[in-house]
Amino acid sequence: MIKANNPNLKSWIEVPDKSDFPIQNIPFGVFSLKNEQLRCGTRIGDQVIDLAMLEAEGFFSDLLSVQVFNQSTLNAFMELGKEYWSAVRQRISELFSEDNPKIRDNEALRQYLIHDLQAIKMHLPVRIGDYTDFYSSREHATNVGIMFRDPDKALLPNWLHIPVAYHGRSSSIVVSGTDIHRPKGQLLPKDADKPVFGPSKLLDFELEMAFVLGKGNELGEPISIENAEDHIFGMVIFNDLSARDIQKWEYVPLGPFLGKNFGSVISPWIVPLEALEPFRTSGPMQEPEVLPYLKLEGENTFDIHLDVSLQPNKGIENQICTSNLKYLYWNMAQQLAHHTVNGCNMNSGDMCASGTISGPAPNEFGSMLELSWGGKNTITLNDGSERKFIHDDDTIIMRAWGERNGIRIGFGESRCKILATK
Amino acid sequence: MIKANNPNLKSWIEVPDKSDFPIQNIPFGVFSLKNEQLRCGTRIGDQVIDLAMLEAEGFFSDLLSVQVFNQSTLNAFMELGKEYWSAVRQRISELFSEDNPKIRDNEALRQYLIHDLQAIKMHLPVRIGDYTDFYSSREHATNVGIMFRDPDKALLPNWLHIPVAYHGRSSSIVVSGTDIHRPKGQLLPKDADKPVFGPSKLLDFELEMAFVLGKGNELGEPISIENAEDHIFGMVIFNDLSARDIQKWEYVPLGPFLGKNFGSVISPWIVPLEALEPFRTSGPMQEPEVLPYLKLEGENTFDIHLDVSLQPNKGIENQICTSNLKYLYWNMAQQLAHHTVNGCNMNSGDMCASGTISGPAPNEFGSMLELSWGGKNTITLNDGSERKFIHDDDTIIMRAWGERNGIRIGFGESRCKILATK
Repeated sequence: MIKANNPNLKSWIEVPDKSDFPIQNIPFGVFSLKNEQLRCGTRIGDQVIDLAMLEAEGFFSDLLSVQVFNQSTLNAFMELGKEYWSAVRQRISELFSEDNPKIRDNEALRQYLIHDLQAIKMHLPVRIGDYTDFYSSREHATNVGIMFRDPDKALLPNWLHIPVAYHGRSSSIVVSGTDIHRPKGQLLPKDADKPVFGPSKLLDFELEMAFVLGKGNELGEPISIENAEDHIFGMVIFNDLSARDIQKWEYVPLGPFLGKNFGSVISPWIVPLEALEPFRTSGPMQEPEVLPYLKLEGENTFDIHLDVSLQPNKGIENQICTSNLKYLYWNMAQQLAHHTVNGCNMNSGDMCASGTISGPAPNEFGSMLELSWGGKNTITLNDGSERKFIHDDDTIIMRAWGERNGIRIGFGESRCKILATK
Repeated sequence: MIKANNPNLKSWIEVPDKSDFPIQNIPFGVFSLKNEQLRCGTRIGDQVIDLAMLEAEGFFSDLLSVQVFNQSTLNAFMELGKEYWSAVRQRISELFSEDNPKIRDNEALRQYLIHDLQAIKMHLPVRIGDYTDFYSSREHATNVGIMFRDPDKALLPNWLHIPVAYHGRSSSIVVSGTDIHRPKGQLLPKDADKPVFGPSKLLDFELEMAFVLGKGNELGEPISIENAEDHIFGMVIFNDLSARDIQKWEYVPLGPFLGKNFGSVISPWIVPLEALEPFRTSGPMQEPEVLPYLKLEGENTFDIHLDVSLQPNKGIENQICTSNLKYLYWNMAQQLAHHTVNGCNMNSGDMCASGTISGPAPNEFGSMLELSWGGKNTITLNDGSERKFIHDDDTIIMRAWGERNGIRIGFGESRCKILATK
């Protein structure tokens, strides 16, 4: 077992019950104190630890030959590669273990290194080069196929052979807590033959997770499926906001564009793939057999609970669906091997989202499109109000965690309020 | 008239006949001398001028308050905005005008500032954040529609209303002179129901141009069509390499992915939009009328000649098509206004390609797909060999220039050799 994953470890930093951030997590993020520069940090319980300061104090000097944490993104650290990520994680685990007095008993140092969550602001953790969105949930692709195409041929012929994906927009990926205005665009009214211009009426979320590339590959040098996970630094929750009416009119024949690129909202802490090891599990059986470059035996996905809540303005949260990462038909290693098999190069900081993660049960659908079945059904909230799609001033909150043998490792939240069109 | 565009200006640097780079061009690029760091430069005739050194010598000190040219990309310069681009261009124009002795008569300075093209290497001129590929040629979209869909309904219903586009991959955009290996991928053999894996058999180029974003916009703040051109720094030639067979099998329903992202090849010098002013012209009539956010009176495109040559291994060049930027149905201002109308944010260095620029005549089609009409026709080269698509060891050379009133402003080349699959 990876030492930092030992379920018996405890930290001298208090970890509240049901916290996503025990000492076995050690996520990486970027934060700032008021009026100060961005720097990299980690989190235990509700405390944020300044990695730039830990580095400056020499706590990593035997592990890293360059300074990587006094920066506004994690890219430099991620480029170092898996053995460095693991060594730094292990060192943090040791420094904050309950029996280690080095920082625990040095009040001046503690004051300087550790900040209450309330005192800091989180930022986008990486400089994202390219962003790709997969379409890897069989349940989601099937639901969409039934609604918009042919219930008897819901999956397109390529779907069971290819981890289908498209390029997305990286510039509009924002960190949890960022509000997004309802987008305007071209919409085709029912039975009209000409579009009109106006605010999207069918605004939706998509419940996704994304992996963040740690170390990339050179153009022309595919990443083999056996090595794929070594390139993955960690994961975040990904809310792929979608304007269904804009998307519907624009997307033929080249795919989604303005229906997607007005904002996507990630959780701020990247949970290392290593921290998810306890939750490894098998994905769905793949039949027909996949081509050899996509074949990988073993437990190649993770049992991660997901849920989405809607919170109307001044209202309370309503959980509207749950799902699980393990439902995905295509796993991350397959996605990355496929993405690079033609020689496409990946860079540190690139992000690959899963596509909407829907499960088999109707309360496990990962978008309003599916939950309201294309607007046919209505979801009633606690306050009696009804939803088919997202209303102005609704806040969308996504959460994700693994829980096994008494250890819970989580991702915190992706939270986004939809504001009226400007 | 912009002073630097004065057709009567001459430089004390020799400009060969038919050069793309008279003193009225003043393109921007990034170069390096052997074993030295990358820095920004410009070009007159066949001489490359070191802008980092010009800056260090104080030639821009009254114009720029920060150092922007001693960098490996032009992004910092581009972020300054249009008035700075124009002022720097004017200063360069003055410094290298034939009657200005300041550098002309200072041999030591000249040696230090000016390099023969043969002594330097060109690099990617910008750090590209996001890359978008439009689909703005009516002739191209029509040709593709006739071949793959319905000749009577060749254009899809949205095409005349929307400057259709999709997100592309920025990491695999490379500079002219980079060789690209033929990609491997999933292909569906004729009449098969299962894909096979292997090298693409239908490798193609797409003759495109791209504009480079100078100054961006904030998320949620669209760029109006009236202001759109002020955000555009300049243009390059763009060869959007395409594997037609990979693309055909993968692209439904979310658009092109691995069929496109194995390599796109740009010309190294970004020609400022200001230098293209003499070639302004009107684009095609737009009927039906476009929505108000896409309306712009006047001459909103440029008369830029384009051509493509194929050079077989050890063979001579064969010009296989010509075209013109002015054929595009949607102009750059419309593309940028559309791209941001939903609030999508653009950053300095983002690149927007035009889509294949085909003209009305069969020798003006901008891809092998169209020139060979889906592989039905054969193109015979000077050496007697035949092509339907690109063969291994073929070099694809694209050129572009405007020519009016005795002044020719050009883009140089996008050159790429296709190597066998690794």
